[in-house]
Formats: sequence, structure tokens, C-alpha cells
Amino acid sequence: MTSRAGLGRLSLNQRTTASWSLPEAIKGCVDAGLGAIGIWREQLAEVGLDEARRLVADSGLRVSSLCRGGFFTTADPAEAANAEAMNREAIEEAAALNAATVVLVPGGLPPGDRDLVAARDRAARAIERLVPYAHERGVNLGIEPMNPIYAADRGVISTLAQALDIAERFDAADVGVVVDTFHVWWEPGVGDQLQRAGPRIVSYQICDWITPLPADTLLARGMMGDGHIDFPAFTQSVARAGYRGDIEVEIFNAELWAAPPAEVVDTMAERYLELVQPYLAE
Amino acid sequence: MTSRAGLGRLSLNQRTTASWSLPEAIKGCVDAGLGAIGIWREQLAEVGLDEARRLVADSGLRVSSLCRGGFFTTADPAEAANAEAMNREAIEEAAALNAATVVLVPGGLPPGDRDLVAARDRAARAIERLVPYAHERGVNLGIEPMNPIYAADRGVISTLAQALDIAERFDAADVGVVVDTFHVWWEPGVGDQLQRAGPRIVSYQICDWITPLPADTLLARGMMGDGHIDFPAFTQSVARAGYRGDIEVEIFNAELWAAPPAEVVDTMAERYLELVQPYLAE
Repeated sequence: MTSRAGLGRLSLNQRTTASWSLPEAIKGCVDAGLGAIGIWREQLAEVGLDEARRLVADSGLRVSSLCRGGFFTTADPAEAANAEAMNREAIEEAAALNAATVVLVPGGLPPGDRDLVAARDRAARAIERLVPYAHERGVNLGIEPMNPIYAADRGVISTLAQALDIAERFDAADVGVVVDTFHVWWEPGVGDQLQRAGPRIVSYQICDWITPLPADTLLARGMMGDGHIDFPAFTQSVARAGYRGDIEVEIFNAELWAAPPAEVVDTMAERYLELVQPYLAE
Repeated sequence: MTSRAGLGRLSLNQRTTASWSLPEAIKGCVDAGLGAIGIWREQLAEVGLDEARRLVADSGLRVSSLCRGGFFTTADPAEAANAEAMNREAIEEAAALNAATVVLVPGGLPPGDRDLVAARDRAARAIERLVPYAHERGVNLGIEPMNPIYAADRGVISTLAQALDIAERFDAADVGVVVDTFHVWWEPGVGDQLQRAGPRIVSYQICDWITPLPADTLLARGMMGDGHIDFPAFTQSVARAGYRGDIEVEIFNAELWAAPPAEVVDTMAERYLELVQPYLAE
């Protein structure tokens, strides 16, 4: 494939076009001239790993991320073993697809559990247990700090600084960080943290913070330019940190999901060319 | 008045019982045996400062806070002058009421403005301009860091660490920090920041983080015990930091507002006695 002018580093995360199957999303990326795709395990399972690998190879797309691993904050040994098995599967899939990283969403507080410090510690130790397995397969684990709006129910790692505190215990090739504008745009000193991260930035995901926040906070993300995030400035910081990978658009939004997916891809490409792509040069 | 056993340090923030006028809220506090009240300027204006001062003095209640000053992130000089005048009025009221602090809510990004760093800097400089005026009147300015859910539209100071970075430029008697569990419960290292704050903690406000988050995020706060915050542990950290002031319950919640206010006060007193009061001893 040949990517369209300026779109060579743009990647479609499948959650932005939730109604597309993996084959449809791959075709949509190719048709729009994008360079990469962020694949979700649920849609991957529908076609199977061998077929997915063939489709990706034929398309010429890079796999900018595999979503998602993680969800390992449980204090229950049996659940922890299940989570570890699930993460190992994700690592195998990421290896097969040559994904830039497996995105690790830490998970929230277990039901009835209010000890956030302990949950964060369990997440860190779960990552530690996965590193040898991922290392053997040449797969990078990408820790995704999540907006504190999700600290209770989705992601107990809340800042880029905190994600780096964990990631830096390991080789940069093994453990990186996923920088999603929605999650960290508000973080005091985020520019310094991006510099600190440097080569540990394994994924740059973009979407906007919109107000008023939609009623379902899981679907609260906006198209770049529709909200409050300064994409030119943030992107320049990411570029200065040395990031040379793909830029993945990941937008959970009910209105976008109701729109024709190809139109959503067109819009995101336009916004990317306006607000992000010109600021990627260091 | 005599406060009920164990409730001597409990304060009702008026927003918890939004339908009560100031006289009604003062009577409600006295009837319930609380030791203090957090007063809102809107309800204060309804009765006037002289009458309010008389009512408070007669009640024997302490004024644990005056809400709110702040909202000074504008880049427009005329608006900034208006904000400063508004804050000076609040300082005068706080002096008259002998309030422990004026709660400063920084304000969000001005419409169309995406420069969060600059907005934060304007907030810090606005505080700096207010300090001499507050100092002369013996009034403490309490910077309230706000949950990042409000970073765009309500409060650009997002962490206790960031609030302390500003507060520490001034004498502790002049500028403190307001610690509201809803805003900072998720903050990595918040225990260390509370220790750092020490005597700068001028207000301890409590309410819970509940999920799923109510549709209107401004009314997203829950009664202690209904959500994910570990009040015993958090309260112990506040006590270890040396805080000896009142504990103010501030809950913005449409369901609570629809309930009879006296019942809401009873419930908050019960939850306080269960989850907070036993943990206030150092």
C-alpha cells in the first residue's frame, strides 16, 4: 500500500470505528491511506490470529498497538492466575502481529476494595511477572496511565509519572508507556514527564477532552479539535521526546459510533493533518 | 451550644443541604450538634453580612470555610479586575465571619483557550496579588486542587502537590491548601503530600467518589461510605499531618438535594462517626 500524503504515521484504533470488523477496519485504513492500525483482541478473536496476520501482512499496515492486556489488580489468586494467562495470550498475539506494544490497562479497585495503594502495587507486580514472558517473545508491554476519572473502576495508574516509576524498573525495550492525550493532558509537568519517558513512549494515542462530559464517562472522548486539549503543543512535546512511531486515534464516543465509519476516518485524518501532523517534526 | 458527642469537629458545608437558607443551615447545625459550618457567599448575600455575623455568633458555631473565591484564570484584564474585586469582597466577608479560610477554586480554561500552563500561571499570579490584602485582614487563602475531571472547566490546579508548589511561595498563615477527598483521593503519593502540607492544611472536606459517575459531573459526589474512598486511611494521614481543624462535609448531589436536609445531616453525622471521627486521633 501507499499511504496518503501526510498520513503515513496515522493509525486507526479499532475502537474509533467500533462497528467495523477487523477485515473492514484494515480495508478502511488502506482505503484512507493510513500507515497503521491499532487492533483490539475482541475483533481479532472473530477472525482468528492466522487470518488476522495474513490480512495485516497483505495490507502493508503496521500494527501500532494490540489492545488490551492488563486488568490485573485483583487480590484473588485464582483471578490473578486468569489475568496472567489472558495477558500471556495477548503477548503471543502481539508477537505474531509484530505489534509495537501490548497496551496494559491496569484495571480498577476490586469490588468493595478501597486500598488504592495496594491495588497499584499489585498492578506493578503483575507487570513484573509478565516481563520475562514478553521479553522472550520480543514484545513490549505498554503501561497506560489513565485519567483519574477511571481510577476507581478501570485504571489505578493515574499519571505518566507513576507509569514511568514502574516502567523504569525494567529495560526500555521490555516496558514502555502509552501516552494518551485524554488521560494525561491535565498532568502538571507532563512536558517534563514526556522528556523523561523518551524512548519509553511506545504509543501515542490521541483524542480530545470535551465538556460537558458525556453521561457515560467510558464514552466521553472527543474528536481532536472538539475539546480543550492543545494538540500542537502536546504533539511537539512528544516529538521532542524522540517519539517516531505511529499516532493512533482512539475515540470512545457513542455519536461517532453511530456515524458511517469511513466518514469518521476521513474526519480524523483531516483533524490529524491540521492539529497533529505538522507538529511531529522535532 | 453544646456539640453532640463526637461531632464537635464536624462541619456542614452549605452545598450539602442546598435548599436551606443560611439561617436554616445554622439552625440545622445546632440542632444536630455540629461544631461548625462552611458558608457559601450566595446564601450569605441573601441575609447580609451583619445579620450573618450575628447569627453565627449566637449559634456558637465556628465558620470552617467561606466558599468561594477564585475563578481567576481569565486572560482579559477587565475580567481579571472583576475577579480580583470579587475575591477582595470574599476576603472581607471571611474576616468578618472569622472563617478559617476562603476556599479558592481556581477556575477553568477561558473559552477557546487551550493553554493550561498559562492558565495555571495566571491563577498563581492572581493569588499572589491577593495575599497582601488577605494578610492585612488576617484571612487565610485556601487553594483547592480539583479533580482533573474539572481541569478544563472549573479548576486548573489539579493536584495537592501543585497547590503546595504555589502555596509554599507564601507564609503558611497567609496561603494554605484545601484538602477535599473527592479531588485528591487518587493522587499518587498523596500521603507524602499531606505530610508536606502539614500546617498548610486549612480545610479538610470530605465526600466520596462514586461509580458509575452521575451524568452531571458537577453533582457527582457521594456520601462517605457510598463509594471508593478509604476514609479511615485518608483521615489518619490528615491527622498525622497535624490537622486539628474542622471536618467539612461538602456533597454536590441531586439525590441528596431532593431529600429532607435534616435527614441528610443525620446521615452525614452517622457516616462521620463511623468512618472519620475515630481516625482523627494522631
